[in-house]
Amino acid sequence: MNETTVTLVGNVATGVEYRETPMGGVARFRFAVTARRWLREQAAWADGGTSFYTVSAWRALGANLAASVTVGDPLVVHGRLRVREEERDGRRKTFVDVDAVAAGHDLSRGTAAFRRAVRPVAAAERPSDDAQSQSGMEASVTPAPPSVEAPTPVF
Amino acid sequence: MNETTVTLVGNVATGVEYRETPMGGVARFRFAVTARRWLREQAAWADGGTSFYTVSAWRALGANLAASVTVGDPLVVHGRLRVREEERDGRRKTFVDVDAVAAGHDLSRGTAAFRRAVRPVAAAERPSDDAQSQSGMEASVTPAPPSVEAPTPVF
Amino acid sequence: MNETTVTLVGNVATGVEYRETPMGGVARFRFAVTARRWLREQAAWADGGTSFYTVSAWRALGANLAASVTVGDPLVVHGRLRVREEERDGRRKTFVDVDAVAAGHDLSRGTAAFRRAVRPVAAAERPSDDAQSQSGMEASVTPAPPSVEAPTPVF
Amino acid sequence: MNETTVTLVGNVATGVEYRETPMGGVARFRFAVTARRWLREQAAWADGGTSFYTVSAWRALGANLAASVTVGDPLVVHGRLRVREEERDGRRKTFVDVDAVAAGHDLSRGTAAFRRAVRPVAAAERPSDDAQSQSGMEASVTPAPPSVEAPTPVF
Repeated sequence: MNETTVTLVGNVATGVEYRETPMGGVARFRFAVTARRWLREQAAWADGGTSFYTVSAWRALGANLAASVTVGDPLVVHGRLRVREEERDGRRKTFVDVDAVAAGHDLSRGTAAFRRAVRPVAAAERPSDDAQSQSGMEASVTPAPPSVEAPTPVF
Repeated sequence: MNETTVTLVGNVATGVEYRETPMGGVARFRFAVTARRWLREQAAWADGGTSFYTVSAWRALGANLAASVTVGDPLVVHGRLRVREEERDGRRKTFVDVDAVAAGHDLSRGTAAFRRAVRPVAAAERPSDDAQSQSGMEASVTPAPPSVEAPTPVF
Repeated sequence: MNETTVTLVGNVATGVEYRETPMGGVARFRFAVTARRWLREQAAWADGGTSFYTVSAWRALGANLAASVTVGDPLVVHGRLRVREEERDGRRKTFVDVDAVAAGHDLSRGTAAFRRAVRPVAAAERPSDDAQSQSGMEASVTPAPPSVEAPTPVF
Repeated sequence: MNETTVTLVGNVATGVEYRETPMGGVARFRFAVTARRWLREQAAWADGGTSFYTVSAWRALGANLAASVTVGDPLVVHGRLRVREEERDGRRKTFVDVDAVAAGHDLSRGTAAFRRAVRPVAAAERPSDDAQSQSGMEASVTPAPPSVEAPTPVF
């Protein structure tokens, strides 16, 4: 409830750090989004500055990101946004986190050879619930892949 | 103004059709999104049905999608949503279109080897404006890649 | 999981129909979104056509919409998008539905006098879960209002 | 291009500050979003913490927000997200800004009496372009209200 969802289109700004935790593996990296806007009067693009986010990805998404992504790669990242304020070294710091739900290389910048993961029978390959990826306290159920009946193409 | 932006997480449901037009190349395919929800009382997942969309992608994104994607592939698609109604064969039909701005293989389902496109010096590799991808009537400017100064990782 | 969330900015296109159901009250209306885009070369706005959606709102949101909204009102509607296909009169028809999670009058078009609902002690005033608003099969818990500690304004 | 759009559902956390600038009036306030998640195993809601944003709204939206909103009001805010880092007093500070495009009282929490603004003939009542609200350097054109032909209700 009241989750804030964002989709970021930008570039990986730091190496992907991957580590195992009792709740499953997690990948983390900084992500840079540079907006551009068209200025009508000047008929020119203006650079809107670069926004940096810390992206976390759990379990299968985290492992696959760690295996597939390097610094500079263009990505589309879809996830939950959160802004945290914490004391660090006696100072109040602000952290802007995105807990990724789905992410992939942005094909407007290049091509990709994709290899689908083989699903282990009983394992939790994919965060199967919103709450889970943060709490890690729940049994995970691998959802069946969506049965896509080939629809008549309608263009 | 008043654009409706969506991010779809789902699977390619038909082959990608790619064709050249005077406004540049365009890729089109049907895309299936199957939502699942957690039912609290029953403590079970409910399938929310499958929604189908027609995705269009212009220029570099279209060409790279055509080169990288096959039926069944899991994708993240970010773009502009539009619902059109048209007479066809004497009947009113409804079309639900997404004009993709960015898209990539969903790494929660597998791994990808990404190859960045080499940018031609003067060519329009990327739709550089919202209006353009539909109107195709504008000169295109290849935006400079964002200059990502490596930031200090802050986790 | 894989929910498609949208935010629509547009106008109420039909009267709000409100009815009681065993799962609680529901308001329904058609909603029109007209996108405009800036055409760079022509230096003019292009009308991107009008998209129509059927918006449903359950319980408190539905009742308050029915009490507050009339045809033509500009709204911001945030909710879950779904595209359904059904046989009707021997024809396949497409329905584009938004199950609203939050909605309000767009203050870029006018002013509003808001009156907060008094929360009944034990009642479920607000859809407290995603699944609930459609399934209606779960006990509802009124979430405590967010305790907003007045933060130091940082501009 | 690469704009990050968000929709925030939460509460106004500070008084709305409104001031005139050479580029038009602007309203600013802090906004609090408290996410809640359903923990499956515990069958309970978890509070996901409160995220704070600084919302800016220009011109008509700013003036109408200033006239309609008080601390604590529940709002839906739709706009462009930006994360800025700046030196202040010798320290690096992070600012999380949302430039609102549309916003309204969340009718899941109460009712509203809306009064549509009378549009001055030649005035710029509404930010008519993305770039404008930040650059303020462009002539503004009041878009004609969308001509909503009453559609046949299809539920």
